[in-house]
Amino acid sequence: MATKRMTLAEIASALGAELRGDPDLEITGLATLEAAGPDQLSFLSNPAYSRYLGESQAGAVLISPAMAEPTQTNVLLLDDPYLGYARISRYFDTSPAPAAGVHATAVIAPSVVVPDSASIGPYVVIEAGVTLGQRVVIGAHSVIGADCSLGDDCVLRPRVTLAHGVTMGHRCHILSGAVIGSDGFGFAVHKGEWHRIAQIGGVTLGDDVEVGANTAIDRGALEDTRLGNGVKIDNLVQVAHNVQIGDHSALAGKVGIAGSTRIGSHCMFGGASGVSGHLTITDGVQVTGMTMVTGDIREPGVYSSGTGHMNNREWRKNAARFRQLDAMARRLKELEKKIEG
Amino acid sequence: MATKRMTLAEIASALGAELRGDPDLEITGLATLEAAGPDQLSFLSNPAYSRYLGESQAGAVLISPAMAEPTQTNVLLLDDPYLGYARISRYFDTSPAPAAGVHATAVIAPSVVVPDSASIGPYVVIEAGVTLGQRVVIGAHSVIGADCSLGDDCVLRPRVTLAHGVTMGHRCHILSGAVIGSDGFGFAVHKGEWHRIAQIGGVTLGDDVEVGANTAIDRGALEDTRLGNGVKIDNLVQVAHNVQIGDHSALAGKVGIAGSTRIGSHCMFGGASGVSGHLTITDGVQVTGMTMVTGDIREPGVYSSGTGHMNNREWRKNAARFRQLDAMARRLKELEKKIEG
Amino acid sequence: MATKRMTLAEIASALGAELRGDPDLEITGLATLEAAGPDQLSFLSNPAYSRYLGESQAGAVLISPAMAEPTQTNVLLLDDPYLGYARISRYFDTSPAPAAGVHATAVIAPSVVVPDSASIGPYVVIEAGVTLGQRVVIGAHSVIGADCSLGDDCVLRPRVTLAHGVTMGHRCHILSGAVIGSDGFGFAVHKGEWHRIAQIGGVTLGDDVEVGANTAIDRGALEDTRLGNGVKIDNLVQVAHNVQIGDHSALAGKVGIAGSTRIGSHCMFGGASGVSGHLTITDGVQVTGMTMVTGDIREPGVYSSGTGHMNNREWRKNAARFRQLDAMARRLKELEKKIEG
Repeated sequence: MATKRMTLAEIASALGAELRGDPDLEITGLATLEAAGPDQLSFLSNPAYSRYLGESQAGAVLISPAMAEPTQTNVLLLDDPYLGYARISRYFDTSPAPAAGVHATAVIAPSVVVPDSASIGPYVVIEAGVTLGQRVVIGAHSVIGADCSLGDDCVLRPRVTLAHGVTMGHRCHILSGAVIGSDGFGFAVHKGEWHRIAQIGGVTLGDDVEVGANTAIDRGALEDTRLGNGVKIDNLVQVAHNVQIGDHSALAGKVGIAGSTRIGSHCMFGGASGVSGHLTITDGVQVTGMTMVTGDIREPGVYSSGTGHMNNREWRKNAARFRQLDAMARRLKELEKKIEG
Repeated sequence: MATKRMTLAEIASALGAELRGDPDLEITGLATLEAAGPDQLSFLSNPAYSRYLGESQAGAVLISPAMAEPTQTNVLLLDDPYLGYARISRYFDTSPAPAAGVHATAVIAPSVVVPDSASIGPYVVIEAGVTLGQRVVIGAHSVIGADCSLGDDCVLRPRVTLAHGVTMGHRCHILSGAVIGSDGFGFAVHKGEWHRIAQIGGVTLGDDVEVGANTAIDRGALEDTRLGNGVKIDNLVQVAHNVQIGDHSALAGKVGIAGSTRIGSHCMFGGASGVSGHLTITDGVQVTGMTMVTGDIREPGVYSSGTGHMNNREWRKNAARFRQLDAMARRLKELEKKIEG
Repeated sequence: MATKRMTLAEIASALGAELRGDPDLEITGLATLEAAGPDQLSFLSNPAYSRYLGESQAGAVLISPAMAEPTQTNVLLLDDPYLGYARISRYFDTSPAPAAGVHATAVIAPSVVVPDSASIGPYVVIEAGVTLGQRVVIGAHSVIGADCSLGDDCVLRPRVTLAHGVTMGHRCHILSGAVIGSDGFGFAVHKGEWHRIAQIGGVTLGDDVEVGANTAIDRGALEDTRLGNGVKIDNLVQVAHNVQIGDHSALAGKVGIAGSTRIGSHCMFGGASGVSGHLTITDGVQVTGMTMVTGDIREPGVYSSGTGHMNNREWRKNAARFRQLDAMARRLKELEKKIEG
């Protein structure tokens, strides 16, 4: 693909950064301080990496005024260099940008209006009643069920499946393999057998929602499963039926949220953490990786469970003692009584 | 889509319920007690929700005789209202029901006989030797490998993949993204390198099996991986090669069952629980969410492991002590000796 | 499909085994000692199964000289019978071997050169700039993004998705539903909202890499996510952006490796184990199932965490005490002081 180019002056202007150095220097890409060459831009946001700054061959560096050396040149000074890197990264993104138009092999229900600005890839299937926003990109092999609605600038990577009745706002980004609107896991048990409950609700996503590869978001039993604006979900995450997730919360890879749980805004769930069903988690809660959340969380803060890895031989001894923990507590109490009593 | 309508008399008759109220009242859908309007049916099965009963605008309520107020009208009395809700939910299901017929884009091996009652979606691929039951529905983009067999009324949602040699009974329901019959993870190690073992077995599912979105069920190494009748599996579950699961067992989202483990009938595995390989779990075992099962379970009952979330600062202290647990136990023993000895 | 046949003499020759018995006996398949019939080959590698040897109806058995009885006939003697089984299993593999050729429905960018020896299935999409090795097999519905490169003898099962810029060596084997090259989960937070960072790196796989069903491997933020030669990854595994995995390491089902972690060679991760981000795991590390790895591992060996299942009533008592563990340790210390003075 054609190399993208941007001068330091253009980058400074795009980011609102103060440029100290050569405004005409052309940048062709981004790299770490260690790997960057003279036509690449790098950034320093974590002080731990400042040791790489002296040796770096980077053509220019995004840096905060506080961390920049007074004599350094070709620096772009801005308060939040990591945010600057995020913003400029999209310009240098190497992802192919599909042209507008509808591939000849797409199977689209006759009633669906496809905007001229939309890009519909090979073998896409779009069923009746679907509404598509301006500039939507539907990757190859994606299937969009009946009565879905996609806002402007939504991007579905190849092989996304939306079941019927999924609504998303603007600028949502859905990665390959994601399934949104699958039937919730709802059954009534009768004489030891499971009787399926039709899942009549849908799924509603706000604006700027990201859904990772091979993630599954179930439709609601009666009402919609709901994700607020700016919610970010990583790969292989399970969001069960009736779950509600507040604005700007983020779920890392392999998280599982069981049915009917409500999660507040600005929460963060570490990888492979899990939340039981029918719970309420307030705003601003951070849960570390692999934590098991078994009850409501009413106060913002950081929550954890589990124990970290140890040598298997030591672990065996300690894990065996865990089975005696209640007995140990009683014996300890007994001793205290004897000595203090 | 057209609104479905059913009178209270019809619903009572369908469920074998006793109607107290207006037999001609038309119901157009289902909703919770809180959300239901005057043309919707609701249900009360969990006593915790009985507080919503008084205020509910529901047109009618499924309820047990024990919980109904004598003066209430438009109630449908039946012993298990939740089961009644499950049964009637399918009538009001909004999932589009695809018409019978074969989409022009389906690629079907010439030898395969497709029943007239079957519905084969766009871009479906069906390989040689496949047997299809009456009224099967194969969603768009599903791939059915050679020599698979599907019983009557099986439904594959869009984008299901069956590798070759997968056999399923009647009324199975497979959600989008599921992969059944993938190669088991079998290797012989030789001089530190892994040598792949061809996975020659298949997969056999009984009747009424449900498989969730993006779940993977591996084929057997030599014999089939087997799931009994009525087995229900949620999203993102891993069922490894040679696993056997007894009738009417249910696995919630993100469960993992390692290779060659045998699970009995009427078992329930909570979300993200895991079972090591080559184990035997007897009938009637319930395992709570995120539990690690490391040995056989020979008695029915409820089993658990792990520890629940706590404030990160408290957790750090306790988790650090876990590393000293065996030493603590020895020190406790020592003290007891000194005091009692 | 046609039955495959091989005489004992041919098998002995293929494996370099010593044959004791009838060289002309025809074998048509493989089975366990318990299930094998007179035209099937079995193997004994685990001494625990030697009790099945006497009763076995197997036509012949792969066995080590040390475990064979002197009077047994139709035995194939070799030092590592399990490796022998792995090698011969591929001959008796029942997976359909697709014929070379390009299916009429494949959508392939005009610039892509497809070797005559390649097999391209129905509805495959191959974008511009893709390089395909000899004898590659691309299963139905697979999507290969721009600028990918596949070495000789790579096999993509149906419905694999490679985003742009994925490079793999020779003989890689990618199972259905796998997504390789999905965008890493990278955001800069600004005023409580997440700003996406374009993921500009790609993914590089070595030779002989196996990737399981519905596994996700993210592309790097700036440089490639890298898996070495002979790496074996099971189903539903999450490999985050910038991860590096050394040669011949194996990850079982549901493992998660968080971003930028480096794993050495010849490591083994048990099912559903997880590794935090930005860690370094040295060569030869084995991590047992469901373990939480929260720090660097610098010494080879076996590592574990978690506690095994127990009866729910006992577990509740012990898990409650875990919350008091630090306090218990302090009380124990206090008692020791009092007694030991």
